[in-house]
Amino acid sequence: MQAGGNPQTLRLMNCAAVLTVLQEVGAARVTELMRATGLSRPTVTAAVSTLIDDGLVEEAETLEADVPRMGRPARVLRFRADARYVLGVDVGPHRVYCEVADLNGTIVARQRRDVTAEGDAHANLLDGVEATMSEVLAKAGVPLSALASVGVGMPGIVDPRRGAVVQAPSMPGRDFLELGRLLQRNVSCPVHVENDVNLAAMAERWRGAGSQTDNLLLVQWGSRVGAAVLLRDQLLRGAHDAAGEIGFVDLEDEPQGVQAGGHGPLESSVGTAWIVRRARSLGDDRSTDAAAVLTAAADGDARALQVVDEVCARLARGLAPFLLAVDPELVIIGGGIVLAGDAVLTALRHHLTKRVIVVPRIALSRLGDDAVALGAVHIALTEAHRRLLDPYTAPNTKPVTRR
Amino acid sequence: MQAGGNPQTLRLMNCAAVLTVLQEVGAARVTELMRATGLSRPTVTAAVSTLIDDGLVEEAETLEADVPRMGRPARVLRFRADARYVLGVDVGPHRVYCEVADLNGTIVARQRRDVTAEGDAHANLLDGVEATMSEVLAKAGVPLSALASVGVGMPGIVDPRRGAVVQAPSMPGRDFLELGRLLQRNVSCPVHVENDVNLAAMAERWRGAGSQTDNLLLVQWGSRVGAAVLLRDQLLRGAHDAAGEIGFVDLEDEPQGVQAGGHGPLESSVGTAWIVRRARSLGDDRSTDAAAVLTAAADGDARALQVVDEVCARLARGLAPFLLAVDPELVIIGGGIVLAGDAVLTALRHHLTKRVIVVPRIALSRLGDDAVALGAVHIALTEAHRRLLDPYTAPNTKPVTRR
Repeated sequence: MQAGGNPQTLRLMNCAAVLTVLQEVGAARVTELMRATGLSRPTVTAAVSTLIDDGLVEEAETLEADVPRMGRPARVLRFRADARYVLGVDVGPHRVYCEVADLNGTIVARQRRDVTAEGDAHANLLDGVEATMSEVLAKAGVPLSALASVGVGMPGIVDPRRGAVVQAPSMPGRDFLELGRLLQRNVSCPVHVENDVNLAAMAERWRGAGSQTDNLLLVQWGSRVGAAVLLRDQLLRGAHDAAGEIGFVDLEDEPQGVQAGGHGPLESSVGTAWIVRRARSLGDDRSTDAAAVLTAAADGDARALQVVDEVCARLARGLAPFLLAVDPELVIIGGGIVLAGDAVLTALRHHLTKRVIVVPRIALSRLGDDAVALGAVHIALTEAHRRLLDPYTAPNTKPVTRR
Repeated sequence: MQAGGNPQTLRLMNCAAVLTVLQEVGAARVTELMRATGLSRPTVTAAVSTLIDDGLVEEAETLEADVPRMGRPARVLRFRADARYVLGVDVGPHRVYCEVADLNGTIVARQRRDVTAEGDAHANLLDGVEATMSEVLAKAGVPLSALASVGVGMPGIVDPRRGAVVQAPSMPGRDFLELGRLLQRNVSCPVHVENDVNLAAMAERWRGAGSQTDNLLLVQWGSRVGAAVLLRDQLLRGAHDAAGEIGFVDLEDEPQGVQAGGHGPLESSVGTAWIVRRARSLGDDRSTDAAAVLTAAADGDARALQVVDEVCARLARGLAPFLLAVDPELVIIGGGIVLAGDAVLTALRHHLTKRVIVVPRIALSRLGDDAVALGAVHIALTEAHRRLLDPYTAPNTKPVTRR
């Protein structure tokens, strides 16, 4: 990077160029860094030396691809994925789940904790989140000072600019919770709050069933039902951060409105509570929870398969208008319903075919309970990698603190 | 624009810089062109001279803003909006409607013609379109050689890359019509085909109720019902060019599927045909068409207002899931229904409030029957302005033909 400017600025920009390449490829020889950056050998060597001093790069013996050979091996530089860490937090109605990852996105610790919505909901939740964060960082052996960024997912309509939940039908008493600002008091890095289903969709794109397409719709289907849309890799947020609220689709002639527990009309009629009730009404006296019904369907139990077919017919009624509106390439089904396996895909395809013009590909999520936290790790990582470059590209910012 | 290259290339790039400014502002003095481009006076003067020779710029006496004053007025250069023309074509099920515009987007001629879907549908339609195009160009006094670009709107699922209608439920026999390629035989400029409701949405953004927002949903509501979504000024096309097909929303427990005349379930239950039937069933024996019912509602007729309220309740059931999916800032209602005026807005707001989380602003279209053709003019203009620069920025392309 040979732009104008004083020598110190140029030196920093050269560091940024070398660091960017190593963030991307992980490890490289000096000659490869020269080729990728267009910089000379002495310039690359000087930049590498600075980055090693700053704790962001280390020397490694060989590249994985290297075969043993005679003589001294070429010097290999490796991006230090342990230079900083990020934290992904999934704040659900009844539990908090945290994941710590290094800068390669490798998860190094996990921690979950049940929380209650009773009493002072805001205070209880905040206590629960902060305690889980401390525990998972201790488990990972990561000091707060090594934390580069935090991502947080929550149900409801989230204003990411304010880090606040502006409407949370599923978590009574948690509306207007400014979780981003509150968590920010304890950490010195940025905290980004995002809608949980949006994060799950980003996780599917990053490491899930959506890795091959930038145009997908995720339906997160458990006790509640939400959706998120990625168009050309961009989240469809909507003008009021309220896009994708499929749980509130109201199919009846007479509008039903919000149901008990803050559930939307569609989620009341397809959520796990309905699945259990329907199995009971068909004579299933053993299944105490939806997981049992859904697992039985996966095992081919005829009564459970009937329940799955019926609930998929209901979901298809609400999902079809979403598909007609957005026309995604891929629909991913996540959440507890995934326990029923391919029976869900078969039934959904069958019922959607009669209701849409183009039936998209449909796939099951393989991310399980990790999806939201993984999406939170993903947005935190993006921010962390960007911030690593700051001291080199914006010389007036505070330099990176060495560990 | 002082980039590297040989002197001839540089001269052309300077022309492009001056032309870009004049396309944008319409008219300017040499000193203003110097300021906007960063070029010296002799360079600007030379570029202007070339552009005048090429027929794209002319000298004008004064700027409109100039007040009369003593002495010789400063030389003013004006972009020649009549250097080329564009054509916008709206191909409906029963009519073809064309508009010719100059490079400022001023409409200089209009022409409409009824077409029939009987017999060889493809051939009849093509004949009708070509005849209307010839007539409107003759009316405008614009030779084919002066045509810079053609935009065409058609109902159905349009693949803009192929210029083909890949599915046209409302125009039986017109599926797979490669109108773009067929029209291309007669003109030497590009022909772009786009879904008609998509074009109407772009027209609303350009010169209609959507001029203040880049995040809008248009419902085109007449005998048929379609929708289009603009997100950050980009059309939401969908993975199969099938986004926005609100007319096919199917609200019933038992899927209804495609109805008579290729109508989708929602359009069958809210289209103008239903409006007339419903007015009749309420005892209105005089109204022979929906326009009469809708105008009566605008005039406060109680029975007509009841019909409008009922039909808006139905549309709200289908529109609500679209709003939950996309969360637009503004919903524009266009098409024949607009005749009922504010009664439509009032009823829609009332019925949507019970079915969505956030009710967006709702406005009526003011573009009338021109919307699709105007959108077609808009995409043709964008292409034409881009192509005007080609001879200066891509020196190997054919130079602009002088008129």
